[in-house]
Amino acid sequence: MTTPMPTDLMPVPAEVRFADARLPVAKTFAVAVTRHDDARLRAAIARWQQQWSARTGSGFCAPAVTTAAAPAALVIECQGPGSAVPSLGEDESYSLDVAASQATLRAATVVGAMRGLETLAQLLARDAEGWFLPGISIRDHPRFPWRGLLIDVARHWQPVEVIQRNLDGMALVKLNVLHLHLTDDQGFRIESRTHPELQTQGSDGQYFTQDQIRELIACAQARGIRVVPEIDLPGHATSWVVSHPELASLAGPYAIERHWGIFNAVLDPTNEALYPLLDDFLGEMAALFPDPFLHVGGDENNGVQWNANPRIQAFIIEHGLKDNAGLQTYFNRRVSAILARHGKQMIGWDEILQPDLPKEAVIQTYRGPAALATAARQGYRGLLSHGYYIDLMRPAAEHYLNDPLPATTSLAPEEQRRILGGEATMWSEWVTPENIDARIWPRTAAIAERLWSPREVRDVADLYRRLPAINARLEEASLLQNKNRERMLRRLAGDRASPAALQALRTLAGVVEPVKDYRRGGFQPGVMQSTPLVGLVDCAGPDSAPARDFARMVDQFLFQSREPERALAGLLQRQLETWSETGRVVADNLAAVAPGLKDSVLVARALTEVSGVGRDAVQVLLAGSTPDEAWVKVCSAILLRADHPGPAAVELPILAPLKLLVAAAAEQHRRRACSPEAWEQYVRAIALPPQSSAP
Amino acid sequence: MTTPMPTDLMPVPAEVRFADARLPVAKTFAVAVTRHDDARLRAAIARWQQQWSARTGSGFCAPAVTTAAAPAALVIECQGPGSAVPSLGEDESYSLDVAASQATLRAATVVGAMRGLETLAQLLARDAEGWFLPGISIRDHPRFPWRGLLIDVARHWQPVEVIQRNLDGMALVKLNVLHLHLTDDQGFRIESRTHPELQTQGSDGQYFTQDQIRELIACAQARGIRVVPEIDLPGHATSWVVSHPELASLAGPYAIERHWGIFNAVLDPTNEALYPLLDDFLGEMAALFPDPFLHVGGDENNGVQWNANPRIQAFIIEHGLKDNAGLQTYFNRRVSAILARHGKQMIGWDEILQPDLPKEAVIQTYRGPAALATAARQGYRGLLSHGYYIDLMRPAAEHYLNDPLPATTSLAPEEQRRILGGEATMWSEWVTPENIDARIWPRTAAIAERLWSPREVRDVADLYRRLPAINARLEEASLLQNKNRERMLRRLAGDRASPAALQALRTLAGVVEPVKDYRRGGFQPGVMQSTPLVGLVDCAGPDSAPARDFARMVDQFLFQSREPERALAGLLQRQLETWSETGRVVADNLAAVAPGLKDSVLVARALTEVSGVGRDAVQVLLAGSTPDEAWVKVCSAILLRADHPGPAAVELPILAPLKLLVAAAAEQHRRRACSPEAWEQYVRAIALPPQSSAP
Repeated sequence: MTTPMPTDLMPVPAEVRFADARLPVAKTFAVAVTRHDDARLRAAIARWQQQWSARTGSGFCAPAVTTAAAPAALVIECQGPGSAVPSLGEDESYSLDVAASQATLRAATVVGAMRGLETLAQLLARDAEGWFLPGISIRDHPRFPWRGLLIDVARHWQPVEVIQRNLDGMALVKLNVLHLHLTDDQGFRIESRTHPELQTQGSDGQYFTQDQIRELIACAQARGIRVVPEIDLPGHATSWVVSHPELASLAGPYAIERHWGIFNAVLDPTNEALYPLLDDFLGEMAALFPDPFLHVGGDENNGVQWNANPRIQAFIIEHGLKDNAGLQTYFNRRVSAILARHGKQMIGWDEILQPDLPKEAVIQTYRGPAALATAARQGYRGLLSHGYYIDLMRPAAEHYLNDPLPATTSLAPEEQRRILGGEATMWSEWVTPENIDARIWPRTAAIAERLWSPREVRDVADLYRRLPAINARLEEASLLQNKNRERMLRRLAGDRASPAALQALRTLAGVVEPVKDYRRGGFQPGVMQSTPLVGLVDCAGPDSAPARDFARMVDQFLFQSREPERALAGLLQRQLETWSETGRVVADNLAAVAPGLKDSVLVARALTEVSGVGRDAVQVLLAGSTPDEAWVKVCSAILLRADHPGPAAVELPILAPLKLLVAAAAEQHRRRACSPEAWEQYVRAIALPPQSSAP
Repeated sequence: MTTPMPTDLMPVPAEVRFADARLPVAKTFAVAVTRHDDARLRAAIARWQQQWSARTGSGFCAPAVTTAAAPAALVIECQGPGSAVPSLGEDESYSLDVAASQATLRAATVVGAMRGLETLAQLLARDAEGWFLPGISIRDHPRFPWRGLLIDVARHWQPVEVIQRNLDGMALVKLNVLHLHLTDDQGFRIESRTHPELQTQGSDGQYFTQDQIRELIACAQARGIRVVPEIDLPGHATSWVVSHPELASLAGPYAIERHWGIFNAVLDPTNEALYPLLDDFLGEMAALFPDPFLHVGGDENNGVQWNANPRIQAFIIEHGLKDNAGLQTYFNRRVSAILARHGKQMIGWDEILQPDLPKEAVIQTYRGPAALATAARQGYRGLLSHGYYIDLMRPAAEHYLNDPLPATTSLAPEEQRRILGGEATMWSEWVTPENIDARIWPRTAAIAERLWSPREVRDVADLYRRLPAINARLEEASLLQNKNRERMLRRLAGDRASPAALQALRTLAGVVEPVKDYRRGGFQPGVMQSTPLVGLVDCAGPDSAPARDFARMVDQFLFQSREPERALAGLLQRQLETWSETGRVVADNLAAVAPGLKDSVLVARALTEVSGVGRDAVQVLLAGSTPDEAWVKVCSAILLRADHPGPAAVELPILAPLKLLVAAAAEQHRRRACSPEAWEQYVRAIALPPQSSAP
């Protein structure tokens, strides 16, 4: 895909050619379905019309779909229905041609037509003359057949409406697998009719009924999305043994786990009473979910309970199982047989990859590309989730560049074909129904593009150029990432905040990022399942655009011209002045009337301080003077101190460019003494490193 | 009510006494229902818990409600269920006492208990120690028994979810009548099963089914809210005669009206075929809506069709009816008989007040207090809507001070009792489901307070102090006035807007107001039912807080000290600088990438210009110099030009304080020559008057 891409399409199609044409979109835009036609296609057409309606703000009229191509603005030629239930390997390809008088969408299946309609929805553009479609010719198909989003509904319960609106989001970026993580230590979130005590005792009443699941599956199916349930076994099992302590590996009683981490509760594979229960329950799940895959987890059994139970250790020896891993393999084989009896194929996390694992099983790896390659070499199909852990608060660019099959792969072609794709994982320790959309989107759109578009599409600047557009489309499709962030800011600012104070808080939330990886719990050790997640960190996103822009400006200011440019310095100063004032307003005015901001005062003051440092540094650079050593020391101390997130659990991503500014100011006397490249290298080398700021 | 009111309660209760106590609200807050108990009360308790949950952002735990007072934090003593269907004159009184260890809510009826729960929900407060209820003792009851909100679902269709969330808003501010304006020229929005052609041909498929209405009634009933349907007769009848042209007063055919105004289509009262149809349809409505009142409109029959039909004029003469008004009375009597047969009392607009109108009829007046008094003197009960027309974009303060029974009333006590209350009217020419919440709220809360609270509660400054809090509670109750305004601003700014540009647009939208009264159509003559309402005017509110704050600061700066204060001048200058920059960013940067802002460039530039004028004036005032005449002329010209809204159909409410600034600057040489009062009077007198800016 080397064509220039002035559109905002996401994911980028496999082939795009532009034509010098313009198809005006009037209030009505007649549609003809000229070949295969069915209710699912009609519903997809209605959804697309709804998207345009939300985009333009009109009740975009939906004229009756006809079957005669002649007068229609859009002709849809679909060869057949495709599989009734969305399936792995469904033909999702389509072509879309927009000419001056008509657009034509062709696909082998209805699912392919849906993918094309999503592209069409995104193509709508506007100029002074009005709404239109640009002339274009697209041939498109996905690079990987399995492009998923995992939503953990166990740790923080996520009700039906959350899943529904995220299905809309998935459809928009052409994801095709919803992976529901249904059971974990903190909740058993699915109704069993054969053993209702599982959910009644294991979920605080917060679980999907089977009827709700059927609704969700229908909603997914209408969008060409598979639904794969995960029942995490044998570890992550606290919520199982609340109602069945006799099935745990150590005596109970057990209560639903309210904290985050890896816990000891694990089912006892040596207890024969376990298997009939599993057979009943997995049988129910197999009947409920039409997808041929059923995910059995398998991860993070820490072995504590098995080690502590002599009967279990004796069983391992008696059955020649070698160790706990051997026992887990034994368990997996039993579960595998149960699944096979119910017509399902197993998918699980890395740990299920053990000798004798049936070859049709699929490995989902949180460990990384090497683990994926190992599985593929052994003949197993695999999915990458390592690098797609969106709960870790890493920027979109990182996920975007994480390729299940990088260009450097050493896998043979037939091994490469076993790499099915990947899944973004929305683990829910730190998300609520209120902010989950903002955690998933728009970053998951970047992952969706990685999994759909050609490998060569990997321009990070272009990704960030296009993310705001896809974010707007997601909002139009009913997702709440923007609306709820604003609403949370208003709550945090409180009833008494002035518009200016609210704006300061919005600016602060825009320039901080949540601490990354698994560090938040360290800064906020008291947080558990019932703690409200309503702080600054819960409003802040992992991909601060103002910080990114600032870093780019600093780079340009320092390294892209022989002399610091006055105009650029002015922009930097203005931005730093705003941030300085922002911190002051939040710390001095707002925090006094908004008790929820107590923990954020430190970071607000730090923002003011480090902005002051930045302003000094820019001035020194402009003046061309050499600062005294004391100044450098004070600046360094301020920047280092600001590197410690504190109880708000947020970071200041502008620290890195600020460190560059101070280093450059301190060392500018060397600037003329060496080449620009050498100077840049030197400044980058001596700039303060990021602190290891574990709490 | 003379007690000081440091709480944000809205409406203000009839009696409030504060106590020196603090009842902490922990994660759980146990509730006991100790006397009458039923499902409606339990549902109200659950809704209140949901409000606290949304407020605090936690899944506020709802422990099982008990019946033993002893350990509970809240005891609810309700004497009985009240009427099964909410009714006029239901006892809505309650008392609420919060002590350090327990809160007690007492009411005669479940509806009274609901009103008390809404007060309790608003009392929740937070300080550094956490959430709590302040010690308080409240005795409360409504001033008027009929406190309504009319929603016009005919001109712009408003689907079920709009009505549902607005029922939540109504409950929050203790409104008790939802008036659904179901039919008008632009749409027949209710299903008839006896004559389905009425809605199928008269509504574009956008109407409430009878099942949906039953759901809405149940939802309203659960909140102690009556639902009164309006079927507008005999005028406003275009949507009737689309399917029944034979019933119009002139020959058809007719099409659904797509524009706004008063139209000619009127039913023909001389056609006997009309009455069986009305009997069928009104019979259906009477069976569907349990309320004893049925609204028959009666307004704005312009007589054009009746005058033009000789047969009708002959009928008037033959039956001794005198004129068109006599014919309408004849028609009303027939309709009244139909309603009586179906067990309903008539309510209608001013025009139904004619000789022989049955005394149990209720007059709703859009004409004003005099019309209301006239009806009361004649023995009719009445409702005030004049002054509560929230579609006219007037500020909350105006509605707030509009009293159905002002202190100056000359009505006798028994006549006063006939004034039942009032209704805010949300006519929907210029609102869509997207922005209707922002048009209704928070201004309708001010009207709700007028109708509930004692007459003496009328401090406008305190109203504006409390509006942001009630607005936040409304948002927590699921209303979209804030969320959708932000979303509309994002749409208007477009995908390419930078955060700074979006902020500029937000600032601009915050400092302009839609043109008032019926002027918008003049500025935007092409707009009809299908036109998207997505412009700046649709995002702007009628009650600009920044403009109000600015006007207050200018008053203080000019008239509250002998000399202009430097600090205040600084604040004014900063605000004006921001607005100046705001206009520049929108006009020069944003409008280039956002075609939807084309019409707003003029007002953006005007904002920059008038802000510049204001800055000059402040400087002149600070310097104490006398400006030359040319400067005064130029400033006046700029301010006068800015008074013309142009195609964006928005006004700049800061023009009035800016005119004061310029007048004061021009005349400050007279300041020392007279008393402060005389000078203020003089400056106000010579300041430029607002322009009559009809397009």
